[in-house]
Amino acid sequence: MYGLIGKMMTVDGKRSELTALLLEAVTRMPGCLSYIVAEDTTEPNAIWITEVWDTQESHDQSLTLPEVRAAITKARPLIAGFEKGVTTTPLGGHGLVPAER
Amino acid sequence: MYGLIGKMMTVDGKRSELTALLLEAVTRMPGCLSYIVAEDTTEPNAIWITEVWDTQESHDQSLTLPEVRAAITKARPLIAGFEKGVTTTPLGGHGLVPAER
Repeated sequence: MYGLIGKMMTVDGKRSELTALLLEAVTRMPGCLSYIVAEDTTEPNAIWITEVWDTQESHDQSLTLPEVRAAITKARPLIAGFEKGVTTTPLGGHGLVPAER
Repeated sequence: MYGLIGKMMTVDGKRSELTALLLEAVTRMPGCLSYIVAEDTTEPNAIWITEVWDTQESHDQSLTLPEVRAAITKARPLIAGFEKGVTTTPLGGHGLVPAER
């Protein structure tokens, strides 16, 4: 499995708009086992995204899906930057479910 | 929802032992929607744990479950420290599933 943990900073006041966009886009991505969008509890413009994919290739290919590309285009002006990013090898646990195609 | 993203450092060479313990303990925790155990890809003694719970209370109560307490006791000598911890408010996404009781 292939995992990502990332922190994104939104343009001031645009967090809800950006998270709504992300949540619309992340359904039915082939090979996606988990994709969770969360607000930071202390920083008002910070978002955490945690992802698990069957393979890195599935992740990379998701970026070419029409609905994901459309979301990226809409999201770009709302993003102030990416603060941290960690790549992981998920081993297991609870909540790893293949996305419906 | 209540979320945690944490990085744990294991005693040198004990990562596999610790992740196996964690993975055994995290099934059927009431209120747990996601609990994923992952290895860091660059640091050989680092583990990432990402969690989503329906409420903070469910998380806190999980620490009193007999199987979780037993795992903590076994895990303690394998843990070198906790490097980072972030509390989040998960909004949604894919892979949020109530644990079987």
